[in-house]
Amino acid sequence: MTGTVAGFKTSAVAAGIKARERLDLALIYSEKPAVACAVFTQNRFAAAPVLLSKKNLQESNHRVRALIVNSGNANAATGIDGMRRAEACVAAIAGALGCSPAEVLVSSTGVIGRPLASEAICNAIPALVQGLLPSNTELLARAIMTTDKVPKIASVTVGNARITGVAKGAGMIHPDMATMLSFIMTDAAIEREELESALHYAVDKSFNSISVDGDTSTNDMVAVLANGASGRVDPGEFREGLRQVCEQLAKAIVRDGEGATKFVELTVEGAPSDEAARLIGRTIARSPLVKTAIFGADPNWGRILAAVGNAGVPLQSDRVDIYIGDLNIVDGNLEEAREKLTQPEIRIRVILHSGSGFARVWTCDLTHEYISINADYTT
Amino acid sequence: MTGTVAGFKTSAVAAGIKARERLDLALIYSEKPAVACAVFTQNRFAAAPVLLSKKNLQESNHRVRALIVNSGNANAATGIDGMRRAEACVAAIAGALGCSPAEVLVSSTGVIGRPLASEAICNAIPALVQGLLPSNTELLARAIMTTDKVPKIASVTVGNARITGVAKGAGMIHPDMATMLSFIMTDAAIEREELESALHYAVDKSFNSISVDGDTSTNDMVAVLANGASGRVDPGEFREGLRQVCEQLAKAIVRDGEGATKFVELTVEGAPSDEAARLIGRTIARSPLVKTAIFGADPNWGRILAAVGNAGVPLQSDRVDIYIGDLNIVDGNLEEAREKLTQPEIRIRVILHSGSGFARVWTCDLTHEYISINADYTT
Repeated sequence: MTGTVAGFKTSAVAAGIKARERLDLALIYSEKPAVACAVFTQNRFAAAPVLLSKKNLQESNHRVRALIVNSGNANAATGIDGMRRAEACVAAIAGALGCSPAEVLVSSTGVIGRPLASEAICNAIPALVQGLLPSNTELLARAIMTTDKVPKIASVTVGNARITGVAKGAGMIHPDMATMLSFIMTDAAIEREELESALHYAVDKSFNSISVDGDTSTNDMVAVLANGASGRVDPGEFREGLRQVCEQLAKAIVRDGEGATKFVELTVEGAPSDEAARLIGRTIARSPLVKTAIFGADPNWGRILAAVGNAGVPLQSDRVDIYIGDLNIVDGNLEEAREKLTQPEIRIRVILHSGSGFARVWTCDLTHEYISINADYTT
Repeated sequence: MTGTVAGFKTSAVAAGIKARERLDLALIYSEKPAVACAVFTQNRFAAAPVLLSKKNLQESNHRVRALIVNSGNANAATGIDGMRRAEACVAAIAGALGCSPAEVLVSSTGVIGRPLASEAICNAIPALVQGLLPSNTELLARAIMTTDKVPKIASVTVGNARITGVAKGAGMIHPDMATMLSFIMTDAAIEREELESALHYAVDKSFNSISVDGDTSTNDMVAVLANGASGRVDPGEFREGLRQVCEQLAKAIVRDGEGATKFVELTVEGAPSDEAARLIGRTIARSPLVKTAIFGADPNWGRILAAVGNAGVPLQSDRVDIYIGDLNIVDGNLEEAREKLTQPEIRIRVILHSGSGFARVWTCDLTHEYISINADYTT
């Protein structure tokens, strides 16, 4: 099977958290303790599983054996009872696997503010453990889907090692369904500090570069587990491999964006700094006016310019060039630009003539379907 | 006529900037020099008329005789040529009125990046000046409309004086059409410092409290002209009167929001500070997920909670209560909440239990019609 990572097994079952017997509970198991690092949501109301995973990472000194994740319920805004339920699930899976609870990470995604059916999860654990198979990532990716239309998996080889990840997330902004989760396994042997550094680098260039609107859900989490089964690899190559996996998953999330009909790669060039370029890129990517113009194939570059001006970044030049593909639309033929905007994949370059700062951001359009998905979804 | 302000005359004509002979050029004229203050867009690419009005206010030491405004073209992103055209319009109106160019404010709203038809404006100035009538605010309000469905006028009495304002703006986010303009006349006699302070107070409590998403257009401007014709008034009463006029106009903008079907008054209570409350209120009001939930009458309070958590404000309490009308929806009956969300006017209270900070924000829902207006509008 593509993407098999030595020493890892995965499993997924329908525990009854979602309706209609859909997969909603998954397990990643490392035969040996894996070095683990994770990045978590910055949201003030981080969910119980996020808090517990942070605590367990610390207590286990980043040595992890398992990660359990459910979809259908975020276990967020659930107070002390929510934490007890997360702990009960962790204790049950630790018991079944014969490891310490601190060696288990836990993650949830779904509706906020409902009690988690932790009994149903505990009841499903024997089947979950019995179903463990080497790297069954397709089922793992499916079990974490909420409004996703497709499972998201990416895998690369680095030396003798493999890095394979799954992700969920159906759009840039979907905090109540927990915008995005990603779990990455690797059989590379890597020190914790190297892994931590590689993860932050990779997330910055990928998940933090997709159509971000500042919205982070209560449950966002990216975790990477490295069990060393395939030996040492070059840390630089590993970092680059991890970035590739994260980029593939991040782009897959944008392509599966709620209601999205177009995928946009936006680069901001000639900014005073990379940080300024990133800020401007995000401001453009979150502008409803820019996103609706792309949906309508309207080469209304004034909207992009206004978004640049709203980012609050001082610029040395008044001149801004805006390309769609290879066409400068500030001076260009608007009919030609309109034609380019009808394509499903659009490349926009914004050139600021104010330095050498650069950023790349991926985003999608804002459509009627987005409104329908989010207005008609009922709690 | 309602709202007549002593010593002011206004006029409006169709100069041919907009198609189909619609009103697109208006003039406010003060028979005596008026004390004038204004607040302008923070956008990096402030339009030529904004830059010229700032300069003229400074050069005239805030003594103003006239304000000329066109709709249909923003004269933004037009470079040196745009500034020359704005100056030509100002020189022409100053000549016709017999005042100095520095005593004229100028404002534009419409599409970005097209040369302003300043010749058409200059040609229309004789008719504009000839048409001056005492406080013809209805025509004034109509002449500055772009995607607005209704003209926006507000007026209050303070002692012997009158404060009357007009505004344009059809939604919280519409930078390429120049989100919002407001022009306010008063016959109160007031010192410049008092006027400046009252304007900032009033704008803060009104235009800066409507469904703001950080987007400011290249052309935003609120100007107030005080000609003293009705004598001194109590500065505190004046400030309050100006706030009322601004609040009425700001609410009218939200009610006329692009595609809006619901008007929402959102209060944030119990925040660590008023500033924190404002930041949280804005974060909620700009959340597409909250706005689509309101459109769909979905009492999905997790979306509001996640938006609170995204504001980046440290809170002392984990407890958040969210009321729709008088119903606490965190513990409440969701069917009852759904019913309340079907109303055209909705009051939402978010109580944070973390201090005594308070803010009020007005916003509207995000609908299919918004997407249609902004995707189908073609440059």
